[in-house]
Amino acid sequence: MQYHVDGELVPEEGATVSVRDRGFMYGDAAFETLRAYGGTVFEWAAHEARLRRTCETLGFADAVPDDLRERVRQTLDANDLADAYARLSVTRGVQPGKLTPGHEVDPTVVVIVKELPRGGRDGTRVWDRPAVVQTVKTRRAPDAAVPAAAKTHNYLTGVRARLELRQAATDDYRADEALLRTTNRYVAEGATSNVFFVDSGRLKTPSEDCDILPGVTRSVVLDLAREEEFPVEPGQYTVDDLRDADEAFLTNTTWEIRPIASVDGIEIGTGPMTKLLQRLLDERIERDHYDAHDGNSEDSE
Amino acid sequence: MQYHVDGELVPEEGATVSVRDRGFMYGDAAFETLRAYGGTVFEWAAHEARLRRTCETLGFADAVPDDLRERVRQTLDANDLADAYARLSVTRGVQPGKLTPGHEVDPTVVVIVKELPRGGRDGTRVWDRPAVVQTVKTRRAPDAAVPAAAKTHNYLTGVRARLELRQAATDDYRADEALLRTTNRYVAEGATSNVFFVDSGRLKTPSEDCDILPGVTRSVVLDLAREEEFPVEPGQYTVDDLRDADEAFLTNTTWEIRPIASVDGIEIGTGPMTKLLQRLLDERIERDHYDAHDGNSEDSE
Repeated sequence: MQYHVDGELVPEEGATVSVRDRGFMYGDAAFETLRAYGGTVFEWAAHEARLRRTCETLGFADAVPDDLRERVRQTLDANDLADAYARLSVTRGVQPGKLTPGHEVDPTVVVIVKELPRGGRDGTRVWDRPAVVQTVKTRRAPDAAVPAAAKTHNYLTGVRARLELRQAATDDYRADEALLRTTNRYVAEGATSNVFFVDSGRLKTPSEDCDILPGVTRSVVLDLAREEEFPVEPGQYTVDDLRDADEAFLTNTTWEIRPIASVDGIEIGTGPMTKLLQRLLDERIERDHYDAHDGNSEDSE
Repeated sequence: MQYHVDGELVPEEGATVSVRDRGFMYGDAAFETLRAYGGTVFEWAAHEARLRRTCETLGFADAVPDDLRERVRQTLDANDLADAYARLSVTRGVQPGKLTPGHEVDPTVVVIVKELPRGGRDGTRVWDRPAVVQTVKTRRAPDAAVPAAAKTHNYLTGVRARLELRQAATDDYRADEALLRTTNRYVAEGATSNVFFVDSGRLKTPSEDCDILPGVTRSVVLDLAREEEFPVEPGQYTVDDLRDADEAFLTNTTWEIRPIASVDGIEIGTGPMTKLLQRLLDERIERDHYDAHDGNSEDSE
C-alpha cells in the first residue's frame, strides 16, 4: 500500500512523521475519516469543510493546503482503489519551542487508505450484525474543555470508552459500540458514531448542545428524513429515552446506517424508518457515485 | 542531536514514528517531561511511577519495557548532555484494526533531549521573568471525561489555552502562562504548571479533586513545605482567592519554582515563603545531583 505523507506518495513502511511533529507530541492535528465509492469520496465538501473548521479551532486554518482532495485522489489511484476507507490528517507540523504554538505553520498532511468494499442494497455491509451498544462510564468532555465539533488526534476519550467495552466483554456478551453521555448525563454519541432513535414515528438524535461531533453521515440522514417529511427532533435525551425507543441506529462514514440491536442488554432493533433511511442512503450513494458516469467525475460529489 | 526511538539511537532528522502509530493517530500515548541535572534525572522514580500509572489508565502498562531509565541515560550520553530537558513517550504502537485497542501491544518508546543549563542559586533561571498569568476560557476537562492524573499525548486543552494567550497578546501585555479552571470554576492548573499561593502564612494549592495533573515538582514542594512545618492546604480555590494572595508561584519540571508576577493584570509577586522554597529546592537539587559524586551515580536519585 502507498500512503501520502507531506506531499509525496510513499510505501506504507516508510510512511512516518517526525517525533517532533506536534500531531504526535500533543495530538495537535485535525483529521477526517473518508469513504470512497467508485473512486470518489462520499460527501467530500462536508468533510473538507469540517476539517477546515477543526483547523480554524486549532488556529492554523490559513496554513492548510488547497489540494487536499487531490492528495486523497492520488493515494486512491496509486493503490488502484475505488471502494475504500481513507483517513486524512493535517497536523501543525514541527515547530521550535514547546507547547505554545508558533505563528509559522508548515503542516504535515497524511493520507492513509485501505480497501473497503461497498455493501449497498445487495452486498454485505461493513458490519457483521446490528450494533450491541453499551453505556460506559467515560463521559464526553464538555465543549468548554474540548471543542466538541473539532475532530482531532486527541481521541483518547473514544479509545478509553472502547477499552471499557473490551474489559467488560465475556464469552456471551461483547458490545460493538460504547455509548458516551455528557457530564450532565444526556446521551451524546458513540465512540465513533452518532446515535438516532425512533419514538412514536419521530426521529430523535442528540442535538449539537450535547457536546457531540456532528457527523457527516448524521447530517445526510437528517436531510433524507426531512425530505421524507419525517418529524425530526434533535434534542437532549436520556439513556432511558433511547432504551425505550421503537427503533434505533448508529451512523458514521464507514458503517453508514447500522441498526442498534440492544442498549445495555435491552433489545431495540430495526424497523420501518431505519430500513427506509438505509435504502434512501444506498440510493443516494448509487446515484452520486456509480450511476451514469465512470466513477471519477469531479461533478458527482 | 540524537534521539532514542523504538530501542535505537537515531539522528534527530531520522527520528520518526509510523503514521499508523496510535500515538500519532489518537494521541494514544503516555509521556513525561524530565530534567537532568549533572547527568541524572530529577525525581526519576516519581516520573517513572506516573508514566506507568498513565499507561495503566490507558490499559497497556504490562507492555511498557523495564529499561526506560537506561534509554534516557543513553540519549543523554550520546549527546554529551549533563544538564538537559528530556521528553519520554510510550505509545500503544501500531495495531491492526481501528479505534478499539488490541490486546497485543508493541509500544513505541521515544526519548527527545535538548540542552537546558541549570540556573540554581547563582545562575540564570530558565524563565526570564516572574510569570504573567492570565485566566483563559478553555476549561480543564472533568476527570470523568479525561483522566486528570494521566499525562498523555492528548494535550490540546493546554495548546488551546496557550493559543488564547497568543491571540490576546498586545505590545504591552503578553502572558506567560494560561490559568485553567475546572468546569465548576475552581482554579485547576496552568497549561503546563501547578499553581501555589500564600494566604496569611498558609500555603495553598488546588487539590487533586480539582482535575489537576499532580506534578512531580508540586509534590516535592509540598514535601519541602511540610518539612518546614508550613501549614499546607490543598483545596478548592477560586480565581479571586488566588488574586488576593500575598505570594503566588507556579511549579513544573523545567521552571522549578517560578513566582507569579500577576494574575489577570492584578499584581501578586514573590515573598519570603516562595523564596525559601526556591532555596530549599535548589539545595535539594545540589545535594542529589552535584555534591560528592560525579553526577552519574545511580544512587543519587
